[in-house]
Amino acid sequence: MRSHDQQTAQGFLFTDQYQLTMAQLYYHQGLHEQRVLFDHFFRSYPDYGGHQAGYCINAGMEWLLAWMQQTHIRDEDLAYLRSQTGRTGNRVFDEGFLDWLRRRATFDSITIRAIPEGRVVHPHVPLTVVQGSLAITQILETPLLNTLNFQTLIATKAARIHESAYGRPVLEFGTRRGSGTGTIAATRAALIGGADFSSNVGVSHILGMPPKGTHAHSMVQIFMAIGGSELDAFRAYADLYPDDCLLLVDTVNTLESGVPNAIKVFEELRRRGHKPMGIRLDSGDLAYLSIQSARLLNQAGFPDTAIVLSSDLDELVIWQIITQIREEAVRYGVEPDHLIKRLTFGVGTRLITSQGASSLGGVYKLVATHHQGVWAPAIKIAESAEKTPTPGHKQVWRIYDQRGNATADLLSLDDEDPRQMEAIMLRHPSDNTRFRVLSQQAITDIEPLLVDVMRDGTLVTESPSIHDMRQRRLADMEKLDTGVKRLTNPHIYHVSLTQQLWDFKQNLIANVTGRPIH
Amino acid sequence: MRSHDQQTAQGFLFTDQYQLTMAQLYYHQGLHEQRVLFDHFFRSYPDYGGHQAGYCINAGMEWLLAWMQQTHIRDEDLAYLRSQTGRTGNRVFDEGFLDWLRRRATFDSITIRAIPEGRVVHPHVPLTVVQGSLAITQILETPLLNTLNFQTLIATKAARIHESAYGRPVLEFGTRRGSGTGTIAATRAALIGGADFSSNVGVSHILGMPPKGTHAHSMVQIFMAIGGSELDAFRAYADLYPDDCLLLVDTVNTLESGVPNAIKVFEELRRRGHKPMGIRLDSGDLAYLSIQSARLLNQAGFPDTAIVLSSDLDELVIWQIITQIREEAVRYGVEPDHLIKRLTFGVGTRLITSQGASSLGGVYKLVATHHQGVWAPAIKIAESAEKTPTPGHKQVWRIYDQRGNATADLLSLDDEDPRQMEAIMLRHPSDNTRFRVLSQQAITDIEPLLVDVMRDGTLVTESPSIHDMRQRRLADMEKLDTGVKRLTNPHIYHVSLTQQLWDFKQNLIANVTGRPIH
Repeated sequence: MRSHDQQTAQGFLFTDQYQLTMAQLYYHQGLHEQRVLFDHFFRSYPDYGGHQAGYCINAGMEWLLAWMQQTHIRDEDLAYLRSQTGRTGNRVFDEGFLDWLRRRATFDSITIRAIPEGRVVHPHVPLTVVQGSLAITQILETPLLNTLNFQTLIATKAARIHESAYGRPVLEFGTRRGSGTGTIAATRAALIGGADFSSNVGVSHILGMPPKGTHAHSMVQIFMAIGGSELDAFRAYADLYPDDCLLLVDTVNTLESGVPNAIKVFEELRRRGHKPMGIRLDSGDLAYLSIQSARLLNQAGFPDTAIVLSSDLDELVIWQIITQIREEAVRYGVEPDHLIKRLTFGVGTRLITSQGASSLGGVYKLVATHHQGVWAPAIKIAESAEKTPTPGHKQVWRIYDQRGNATADLLSLDDEDPRQMEAIMLRHPSDNTRFRVLSQQAITDIEPLLVDVMRDGTLVTESPSIHDMRQRRLADMEKLDTGVKRLTNPHIYHVSLTQQLWDFKQNLIANVTGRPIH
Repeated sequence: MRSHDQQTAQGFLFTDQYQLTMAQLYYHQGLHEQRVLFDHFFRSYPDYGGHQAGYCINAGMEWLLAWMQQTHIRDEDLAYLRSQTGRTGNRVFDEGFLDWLRRRATFDSITIRAIPEGRVVHPHVPLTVVQGSLAITQILETPLLNTLNFQTLIATKAARIHESAYGRPVLEFGTRRGSGTGTIAATRAALIGGADFSSNVGVSHILGMPPKGTHAHSMVQIFMAIGGSELDAFRAYADLYPDDCLLLVDTVNTLESGVPNAIKVFEELRRRGHKPMGIRLDSGDLAYLSIQSARLLNQAGFPDTAIVLSSDLDELVIWQIITQIREEAVRYGVEPDHLIKRLTFGVGTRLITSQGASSLGGVYKLVATHHQGVWAPAIKIAESAEKTPTPGHKQVWRIYDQRGNATADLLSLDDEDPRQMEAIMLRHPSDNTRFRVLSQQAITDIEPLLVDVMRDGTLVTESPSIHDMRQRRLADMEKLDTGVKRLTNPHIYHVSLTQQLWDFKQNLIANVTGRPIH
């Protein structure tokens, strides 16, 4: 894409046409500056097909805010809108509306509360609450969902992969299979969610993380093509990077050629006073090959060199590899825990595309409009009770049990404070028969999750660093039940409404549908 | 992402770290300006889980070329590389290499042949052949694969959706579920591959296609929240867009409220001399609801208004909807073909993420190096014969049978011309037992597929317009057997080697492995 087109496509017009036609309608109805509240939330965890997440990792807000702060409508954008015509050749957008856009199409009216990036989040919980004028909040829907849905999706996949990897490093190197420039956001999200490093140089640079990488098969091939050998290629690499020498050993034959040649080079490095870094296996039966490689490396006196595994890894494949190592390593005289502790996982395609669940169905729903100083709820009755969003101006609370574990996320009306309640009624968001009561004695902490991030277009707080987001994710994961973190068939984490919010929602549904509360 | 970071992340450093460490190694070995050939190809069609493509639609090249032409290494990029240190604190990149990068890190040495965008393509066929200096071709691998893999993936999904839609319009509106800014490329690819319009304003603008859109549920909700009704919302919309009035009818209740209200508004429009555009159904049983809506619209004298369907559509869902309409419409007094001819399909998430197959495994393999005026083949022996790339400097031919249908893609050595052969031996790329012979009498045309697009960094031809790419796709699809186009269990299209290329490959394998030719 040419740079000029890129600016256009990534600017104010990075939205859906209907947001603009609706904005114009609101302008003509005098509703465009009506203050409204939109909730952003998702309805279900990513389902990878045969395994489903039991939590998500929130991500994307910092980049959305940066986009909002640097984006404004340009004369060129207005000229384009002016040129649009409908079926009969009439202009779609009139001068009155375009003039309003020219003057007011900024995000200066927008106030945002959000759950911070890196935090564990769950379905039906407002992750982002946007307050602003109707026309602008509507135009914001598309870029907001685009940015937050995708980064949360990828951060979640990364967290699962991290969980499967037994604390061993996870390297992200999926740029080549990523989604165009979207892979930049995906890499950021992967680093928030669980990857420890990325191979992508530019993204690593802007995030202040060191990029990682070794060499490709093509390097060995080149040496062979000019009459040399795999060993020559390894030696050249070791000469140039004696202290960072990580060799890809499967270009010719892993156990017959690659590992023996790597050991030769490692011995030469050792004699010159360098500590070899390790090997990478990129094909074949990775569990078997890592056991055999470890055996050969151990025998040669390199018990600590890393073994990097790659080739279509994801959380299930890593789980399977570790299981197989635990079962089979001993048979070959290799101590399983020792081997696992030297592993590093290079994860590409399946992380950067969240393979199996390539989208997160986050939505952005009108929940309230502001009238005479108070928020009046707005509701859309969906085809099922579960899909009907919880209306109104709300807060979200995380409740920790006596073990200090998160036991539920609780949605309340904005003026409720569950910390002041004697006992807390936790109602299922849509099923009348499901509730539980928690006494304050059973609770160690109640934490509000939505925090102010933007007020009238101005950032309220500096965004935390990627490092801080990673720490927050680790802290939240620590407080999540093992059952919820399970890779397959996780326990369902409770998301609940307060009694007051439940009644509020049911009354509203009854008013709209004319049907009695069930 | 801040604009400055965006420039960094989308610039020269949009590559993997190992490309740069290898480039430095080549620099120190004096190999960096060695001329080489890389083939870009994919090994298998996208498999969506339960259904697999029988063809792909090539896309992405124009944007890769634009990126190459506008990207150069900046002082800031060099400063970043200068700052990188390895495990022991030593610099990763030395001044000699950085100085070479500063002087020579452009794509001026690159020559590219490629199969044009919009064309039907198949596995194991070189879609792109890159010739250039070793260091730069290696650095180019990551951005090339990122750009071409993703757009080809999405164009392919779009083509399948187009095929399922019986020639009815397909609207792309997946930006909210797309992959960050990658959704811009995805939208372009969707338009090349089969979508007729997109809702994304900016992308439509830069591609010269009109964006499409109507209104959202939130518009109806707003009217209800301020004391109005669905009918009020529809009237306001019709007043503003009398000639483009397409109403979303499922906010309250499709058949009890939405469609009757739409009909009222359409009657008002008709009295004022306007032709109503139609309705959109976004939830529920779309086949049933479209039949019932058609019945109501027909009864009210609106037999031609469009019925736009949306809600998690993809090629299988569309196929199912059309099948159900064919079976059930008559029962309700609706003529199936008449109903199908008024449908439009709005496709979001499942198109823009290629749901089910979220990546295309395109690879970039060294196939030849240039020595003393001739191309010497390079080979990597893979774990299976099928994964071993076909080496050497090659051409690709498409062979058309007596019906004018494409019957095989044929890889030959660059100096072969199958048009001059009496009979053509078509060898399976890796299976010795599978071949067929075509006489020239059985052939109506043999067409070379790779065309020159860039020579020494300069564009050889203007890129065709999106419109031309769409036409090319339609023409290629026309010449594809129905069995190959089938949505499930397609026939396998033949990709073959000439006898000479087959022998060349087998000899090379035997030389490297020491194993006899099978």
